[in-house]
Amino acid sequence: MDRAQAVAGRVVSGWVCGVGVGPGDPELLTLKGLRIIRQADVLAFPAPLEGESFARSIVASYLDDARIELPIRMPMQAARFPARAVYDRAVQEIAAHLEAGRGVVVLCQGDPFLYGSFLYLFARLSTDWPVEVVPGVSSLTACAAAAGSALAARNDVLSVLPAPLGDAELEARLSACDTAVLVKVGRHFERVRSLLMRLGLGDSARLVVHAGLPDERVLPLDRVDPADVPYFSTILLHKRGRAWS
Amino acid sequence: MDRAQAVAGRVVSGWVCGVGVGPGDPELLTLKGLRIIRQADVLAFPAPLEGESFARSIVASYLDDARIELPIRMPMQAARFPARAVYDRAVQEIAAHLEAGRGVVVLCQGDPFLYGSFLYLFARLSTDWPVEVVPGVSSLTACAAAAGSALAARNDVLSVLPAPLGDAELEARLSACDTAVLVKVGRHFERVRSLLMRLGLGDSARLVVHAGLPDERVLPLDRVDPADVPYFSTILLHKRGRAWS
Repeated sequence: MDRAQAVAGRVVSGWVCGVGVGPGDPELLTLKGLRIIRQADVLAFPAPLEGESFARSIVASYLDDARIELPIRMPMQAARFPARAVYDRAVQEIAAHLEAGRGVVVLCQGDPFLYGSFLYLFARLSTDWPVEVVPGVSSLTACAAAAGSALAARNDVLSVLPAPLGDAELEARLSACDTAVLVKVGRHFERVRSLLMRLGLGDSARLVVHAGLPDERVLPLDRVDPADVPYFSTILLHKRGRAWS
Repeated sequence: MDRAQAVAGRVVSGWVCGVGVGPGDPELLTLKGLRIIRQADVLAFPAPLEGESFARSIVASYLDDARIELPIRMPMQAARFPARAVYDRAVQEIAAHLEAGRGVVVLCQGDPFLYGSFLYLFARLSTDWPVEVVPGVSSLTACAAAAGSALAARNDVLSVLPAPLGDAELEARLSACDTAVLVKVGRHFERVRSLLMRLGLGDSARLVVHAGLPDERVLPLDRVDPADVPYFSTILLHKRGRAWS
């Protein structure tokens, strides 16, 4: 990661890398992720308007204070928030570090290329800079491990469905798969549970909250309090009715 | 992993854990995977009838010779091979180690719960033993990192489709997603390419071979030699036509 790069005719030694830090357990960071985080001069990460960044908290125990930190602060869970300005400013700051020859790591919860806010930075940065990505353990497989049940076997069709989709679209997609992972469940839980019950799939599903963290929970849907479902919750569905352990 | 467990009325200290070792780059092993592999008394892994195990080769540089190795040998790529006897015998051997109080790790390429042969062992072992699983980086996200392109963004529906499925089923599934990953492509490449071309999706797809390994390749479909597509090859498809870098 110490190669010189030609940018707009100049040779600069800055580099930028999105690192997947996994779903929450600090030990689910990869060896490559750890190495590159330790090589970075600048650490950027998504953060709420106030308080701690979840992505940063995952790797906090591996950090010393010898690097610049660049929190990218915005309201969590606010799909309609005009985030463009926040990302534009973050990219300006990152680009300034790159121009100065620094190595920048962007911490990404889970995997950088799977539904992450990193994608907004990537779209902006990759037009001018080579952006590397270190894949991470995604919440999909972490949730399956937590539930003690296969995600997909043999020739199963696995669908990953964002819970914010409308009922009609979810219903069509659920009918066309063997096993599904519903992501970003959060405030959509009650509606999605009703849909699954109506389709006769309620007993085939489990809610997984905070997979791999000390407060991990795996619950049948009828034992979930809809008021207590965090944004990063996931529903695993096995339509072929495999036994849940 | 040193807890005593009650099995059929006896207390034994054996334990068994499926560890995802990632798609191929030894550095994409997780810290947890490395720790548990090093704690194991016995290392089991899938292997071809002759020659080296790919899963074992991924972690080979981290191993000393102080542990028992248990290769589970069978013909690769042979869906119709009567593997039942091989798995039955492997489970007998693993159970004997557990009864003797040993810790057993089963190495799994990618993630243990995503299409792996580990699932056959898990089904047999988990009736009598608590089986832990350490998730790994899957080939899905590793291929996206290799291709330098997001797997899924915003509210994209992502479908994972085994290439051995028939054309009619693949076509229906491809029509019902925004982005798809076709796994186990291998000898199905020519047929799948024809299908994608007929559906007008050929230009939206890339073949990824050996993601993260020194001989990694990312190719447009019209530049692929069908005779040179390994079993563990993957096609990434973005129907919304995102730019490939």
